[in-house]
Amino acid sequence: MFPDRLLRVVQLLSKLPGVGEKTAQRYALALLVGDESVPRDLGMALQELRDRVGPCSTCGHIAELDPETKRGLCSICRDSRRDPSILCVVARVQDLLSIERSGAMRGRYHVLGGLLSPLDGVGREELGLDRLVARIEASDGAIREVLVATPPSVDGEATALLLSRELGSLGIQVTRIASGVPHGGDLEFADQVTIGRAIEHRRRFG
Amino acid sequence: MFPDRLLRVVQLLSKLPGVGEKTAQRYALALLVGDESVPRDLGMALQELRDRVGPCSTCGHIAELDPETKRGLCSICRDSRRDPSILCVVARVQDLLSIERSGAMRGRYHVLGGLLSPLDGVGREELGLDRLVARIEASDGAIREVLVATPPSVDGEATALLLSRELGSLGIQVTRIASGVPHGGDLEFADQVTIGRAIEHRRRFG
Repeated sequence: MFPDRLLRVVQLLSKLPGVGEKTAQRYALALLVGDESVPRDLGMALQELRDRVGPCSTCGHIAELDPETKRGLCSICRDSRRDPSILCVVARVQDLLSIERSGAMRGRYHVLGGLLSPLDGVGREELGLDRLVARIEASDGAIREVLVATPPSVDGEATALLLSRELGSLGIQVTRIASGVPHGGDLEFADQVTIGRAIEHRRRFG
Repeated sequence: MFPDRLLRVVQLLSKLPGVGEKTAQRYALALLVGDESVPRDLGMALQELRDRVGPCSTCGHIAELDPETKRGLCSICRDSRRDPSILCVVARVQDLLSIERSGAMRGRYHVLGGLLSPLDGVGREELGLDRLVARIEASDGAIREVLVATPPSVDGEATALLLSRELGSLGIQVTRIASGVPHGGDLEFADQVTIGRAIEHRRRFG
């Protein structure tokens, strides 16, 4: 029903997350009508994307890369106004973005790229913990606190525990984000683990 | 938060139908990880898409184009096993695909590219009715029936009426797809217009 070149576009678009064949077909048909510059510009931008954009050489956040060396620093690592004493460790870039939106983190980040998951073959090497340890050691005492902001899930807690063990001997403070009833949340509908944590991790007023 | 080149990809992806900035960002982040060939191949395919794929010179369905002349015939117009005596007029390529899936149409098609809509400035010129008339006349009597398969909506019916008037003088039969209670549909939940049509357009058994 379609020319091969269009089928190829449909097939490639259906590799996007949550995009099935029907949605991909809808996207492809939309690219065939309307402004001719959209598929052309998008095509050009996508072709060079992986040469020009990739993980920051220091923290793993998204950075503009030098197309020759394929290395580069992200805007946060380049920002000299950032507090160099605190490093926030996250699993994914999406988590970093969420924390940045909150405006509550003034330090820098370290993106692990995943969570400890022995069943999926993700161990300390896959998470690049040596790179994190080397970064802290290279800071020559500038990094004084590592805030572990992995999610409060089974894998997230296991990763946090591993980090606290590995980094504990470096003479820095390792902290963990709080877990409890979320802002605006209802105690009636909170699950047992969340309630349990909120009580266990209760804090004094003032 | 993102390099300009990534923002550009997000901005262009958000021009796809039903894709907002958040979904576009999700797509862009997915293209940054995983198989490096996906953004590269998709980029290449999109860049040449509009030069190589476009409306069939005869019917308006999607066809592979000659990159020089930007002209080409679709697979249906090239298929000699198609019944040349019946021409099915549809508003959009999507409608053609839907009819093809049913397997009920053995003739060829004519895609209008839209429906009559005076408020949006779409009249007989915009629908290319001269091109349709010329096609029927050029067939030298081969086309004997035009089946108008525009949707049974206000604009669809207005378009069908216009077509029946314009084509009536060409010595061909102009027919209209049936409208009524859909297969598997429930009379209890059918709207009044549908019920009214199903009764008005009732047919004899056998």
